[in-house]
Amino acid sequence: MNERVGFIGLGIMGRGMAANLIKAGFSVRVWNRTGSRMEPLIAEGAAPGTSPADVAVHSDIVVLCVSDTPDVETVILGENGIIHGAKAGDLVIDCSTISPQETKRIAAELMEKDIHMLDAPISGGSVGATNGTLSIMVGGEDEQFERALPVFEAMGKAITHVGPNGAGQTTKLVNQVLVVGNALAMCEALMFAQAGGLDLQKVYDAVSQGAAGSWFFTNRAPQIMERDWSPGFTIALQQKDVRLCLQAADDMGVPLFGTNIVFNLYRTLEAMGLQDEGNHALIKALEHLAGFEVGG
Amino acid sequence: MNERVGFIGLGIMGRGMAANLIKAGFSVRVWNRTGSRMEPLIAEGAAPGTSPADVAVHSDIVVLCVSDTPDVETVILGENGIIHGAKAGDLVIDCSTISPQETKRIAAELMEKDIHMLDAPISGGSVGATNGTLSIMVGGEDEQFERALPVFEAMGKAITHVGPNGAGQTTKLVNQVLVVGNALAMCEALMFAQAGGLDLQKVYDAVSQGAAGSWFFTNRAPQIMERDWSPGFTIALQQKDVRLCLQAADDMGVPLFGTNIVFNLYRTLEAMGLQDEGNHALIKALEHLAGFEVGG
Repeated sequence: MNERVGFIGLGIMGRGMAANLIKAGFSVRVWNRTGSRMEPLIAEGAAPGTSPADVAVHSDIVVLCVSDTPDVETVILGENGIIHGAKAGDLVIDCSTISPQETKRIAAELMEKDIHMLDAPISGGSVGATNGTLSIMVGGEDEQFERALPVFEAMGKAITHVGPNGAGQTTKLVNQVLVVGNALAMCEALMFAQAGGLDLQKVYDAVSQGAAGSWFFTNRAPQIMERDWSPGFTIALQQKDVRLCLQAADDMGVPLFGTNIVFNLYRTLEAMGLQDEGNHALIKALEHLAGFEVGG
Repeated sequence: MNERVGFIGLGIMGRGMAANLIKAGFSVRVWNRTGSRMEPLIAEGAAPGTSPADVAVHSDIVVLCVSDTPDVETVILGENGIIHGAKAGDLVIDCSTISPQETKRIAAELMEKDIHMLDAPISGGSVGATNGTLSIMVGGEDEQFERALPVFEAMGKAITHVGPNGAGQTTKLVNQVLVVGNALAMCEALMFAQAGGLDLQKVYDAVSQGAAGSWFFTNRAPQIMERDWSPGFTIALQQKDVRLCLQAADDMGVPLFGTNIVFNLYRTLEAMGLQDEGNHALIKALEHLAGFEVGG
């Protein structure tokens, strides 16, 4: 608890995570590209930073949670980036979901200045971020993982050290391959049920608890049946993660048939302007193709 | 309990279901194409039938559980079929998984002789059949569903009346779209994890309980990690069901991208002679394409 913590990126996830660090008693300094987002955290006791480098100067551990690979590169390695403020022995924890390959490169560049890094992507959505119940998949050195545990425990519940730098990101992408694959199965099943004239609630009751069950079907099929497209996770962010999956899979020579289909269906939805809807709005792409809608 | 029950089709599922009917106190007459399969049931107290028609003559309710649509047609409508032995008011319960469209046609043909029918496909595998814990998805008239409940309760746990004739079969196909879609997601995720150099057990621990979770991943990923291909459900039977899904989807105008991919991957495995392995051996098709194996 003696280590000073910096937090960069106060978006839909970061704001709840930073608040939980303050609640847990950490001394927290925050920074966000859009400065106004810092205000609620300052009201809760955070100090305001003037740049990522400034946050790093005043912290021993800097957590960041931003959108994509280029954002992480800018915040860590760019002008006024963390690397320009951090001292030897400091720890950078990246909770963004980005390229495993780039993660290894950034970690190596930090290590040249004796700055440690953990990749620690999260799962659990804004609800998990607010409630401190995130799943955290961590890549990096054992020693740094142990050091970071109090920070992780303030933000999440299921905290798994899966391997060296990059392994956290790769595990997160495994998670996303499962999520979008299960989502596609759910969408096809609901379309089939609708076309077959079935009572969707009865079908849900009959199939959701058995061998056909998934978290996604249990939690998102009811939302679709009510045509509620509010996001647990947006199409735009989901598509960003699917793109990372496909790029990594291409590098590694892994055939991802289902994931690739979802990528193309999300592309259709983005072209329709639906990028801010929940990732379960995937079904709208099938509806668009088939010419009929589910539920209502 | 006063109704006499016939049971036709003593395969991997039917033998356990018939045994549970005997245990529940029903007077049961059995028939199977391969006669020797009747012997264990006769030892448990069943009477031997000489044909489906003969079983129907001595029963008020006839349950059948055979492989595919043509088998059901033969057993019900063919020479020496149930229709030639049943009397007005009798009830036929078809626990096979077959075409919803053909189910409606067969039910209509039986109804011309005042013989009732319920389509009641099952889920839960041979373990569920033996333990009497099957899920049963029932299509047909309310009155016949109520009449059949004691029979269903002797064989299963989650018994859902989903709609009129055909609705049970359509619901089962919805179930199978989910199963194979979740299976594909699991296979792609494990291939990705393997290629990424991850410790598969750690990945399993990190992702199986959250938003990426499914029954199939929880139960079959460990089998794959141990390269255990013993079937809960065989590729041959799974492929038969996927074919029914695709045929019905084509009739109804439903795009099934993921399901269609699984069909083609299972076709590859059948060409490799793997039709008797478990449906999770789906991953062997991806391994065949990628040139590396998961776990081991």
